[in-house]
Amino acid sequence: MRKSIRIGIVGYGNLGRGVEKAVAQSPDLELAAVFTRRPGQIQSSAPVVPVEECGDYRDKIDVMILCGSSSNDLPEQGPLFAGQFNTVDSFDLHARIPEYFERVDAAAEGGGNLSLISSGWDPGLFSLARVLFSSILPGAKTYTFWGKGVSQGHSVAVRRLPGVRQAVQYTVPVPETVERIRQGETPDLTPREQHLRICYVVPEPGADHTAIETAIKTMPGYFADYETTVHFITEEEFAANHTGMPHGGFVITTGSTGGGYRQQAELRLKLEDNPEFTGSVLAAYARAVYRLHREGKTGACTVLDIPLGYLAPESPVELRKKMV
Amino acid sequence: MRKSIRIGIVGYGNLGRGVEKAVAQSPDLELAAVFTRRPGQIQSSAPVVPVEECGDYRDKIDVMILCGSSSNDLPEQGPLFAGQFNTVDSFDLHARIPEYFERVDAAAEGGGNLSLISSGWDPGLFSLARVLFSSILPGAKTYTFWGKGVSQGHSVAVRRLPGVRQAVQYTVPVPETVERIRQGETPDLTPREQHLRICYVVPEPGADHTAIETAIKTMPGYFADYETTVHFITEEEFAANHTGMPHGGFVITTGSTGGGYRQQAELRLKLEDNPEFTGSVLAAYARAVYRLHREGKTGACTVLDIPLGYLAPESPVELRKKMV
Repeated sequence: MRKSIRIGIVGYGNLGRGVEKAVAQSPDLELAAVFTRRPGQIQSSAPVVPVEECGDYRDKIDVMILCGSSSNDLPEQGPLFAGQFNTVDSFDLHARIPEYFERVDAAAEGGGNLSLISSGWDPGLFSLARVLFSSILPGAKTYTFWGKGVSQGHSVAVRRLPGVRQAVQYTVPVPETVERIRQGETPDLTPREQHLRICYVVPEPGADHTAIETAIKTMPGYFADYETTVHFITEEEFAANHTGMPHGGFVITTGSTGGGYRQQAELRLKLEDNPEFTGSVLAAYARAVYRLHREGKTGACTVLDIPLGYLAPESPVELRKKMV
Repeated sequence: MRKSIRIGIVGYGNLGRGVEKAVAQSPDLELAAVFTRRPGQIQSSAPVVPVEECGDYRDKIDVMILCGSSSNDLPEQGPLFAGQFNTVDSFDLHARIPEYFERVDAAAEGGGNLSLISSGWDPGLFSLARVLFSSILPGAKTYTFWGKGVSQGHSVAVRRLPGVRQAVQYTVPVPETVERIRQGETPDLTPREQHLRICYVVPEPGADHTAIETAIKTMPGYFADYETTVHFITEEEFAANHTGMPHGGFVITTGSTGGGYRQQAELRLKLEDNPEFTGSVLAAYARAVYRLHREGKTGACTVLDIPLGYLAPESPVELRKKMV
């Protein structure tokens, strides 16, 4: 086995830079190259290569981490790269995962590669928690709460409105609901009962605040089903307090075992920077993909198919000694 | 594949009965037999068989769940049963896991069986969390807190003291320390800073309370390194409030990613009944062991070697659709 696992990054936005930092923190991983459609515009610690030239790197990369967008890039890039490289991605359009899996699986099998799709924290770590907890507690109720954190999709939706110069949207679990769930209640919840949506908007000079607020609060699919609050702030306040990308949330399962005893399990994440944490998850899973591929595994897989010991830099013997 | 996975239980104490209840809650598992050294004394929903006759059941049991004590039963039973059956156990003497693993591995390989050791919640689910979190966040600090919950070992140690009729010991995380850790501090902690030990003692009539309290608080290995509180109570109060077996705790990891952002992950359990929850974990892992053995895997393994998707009654396709 090589001393270092050679990682390639495709797409150099926030997530790609998060992966780069995670690789730098991992002694057994090295960044071999960054692939991008705009090679002249970016700087990295590794060689920056036009994405069309990736074929030249088939013998120089062990695992390619795909950091493009789930809507715009991965539907095409996922299968394309899976035919040529082992890959890891964070495809996060939950409803389209089965179809995406099939396409990546066919491509990866064709190339003799292993491709992990939908890694990260949700899907990813939260998927692990949902499956683990509900397998242990049959008939239990599982909830996923997100936040407090920045939702990129919702922020973009607000930014597109006329009269909006800049905006950010925070998703926040409803505190009273969280308290009920942690106390062991298992209600059916509407979206409104589960999350609040809080927007900070920098308006264009002279924009109609009431019109903006109404447009946000009535936006179907994004805000209409939620309790939404809109705050108008200055550009200075935005720059000072709202440029970070914190996120997090939790998966919580409450069930009863045979004697009627209530049992509760929870996985909680509190992240100061979402893309850096997601990048760290992808880097650890790249290590696992490399090892499983060396053992002969090919095709597409999800985090549910990967033993957690494969994520660790330590050997199984060391893990049993120190971590079990 | 059979419609039901046939489970055997070896040892019918609290844990064995917890496994029985978990199997009853799982439509794809059925309890084939309970094996015990005292067959005349117990009643179960399944046939009760003297443990010496287990050899007759080699074709009638898919996975044997070993529910004996880690100190007294498993060191002998683990390798013995691994030679004849697929097994799952909850061997929890952390320091002896490597040696136990080797012995079970040799026996399981010899019999062509698969044996999962050290399952349950700690070791078990907490081992998964320690490995997962520290693999994602290299250089991070991971803490394990237990409680509030009943420690059987500490309760037994108190009960053995002269003048003690009945006793229970609760392990409780130190609230101020928990608060510091959740806020993101990463101190080095002594045992005293991490957990309190609270004892409820029913004294024999005329017993010397001061002598009992001193004997508890100075007991090396169990109490001397902790802040310990001793409450003397009546037999009635004990029966009313202290016969349950609640437990729980959490694994929490705080680390920084490349940009200096603090990232925190936590797995938390809150259990009204420890043996029933542990039994439920073992039952889910029995499902995984059955499947992996059918795929040809043999020898000893730990929870770190098992993909979490194998725990679920659902197929991989269903899981990708509903849970990822």
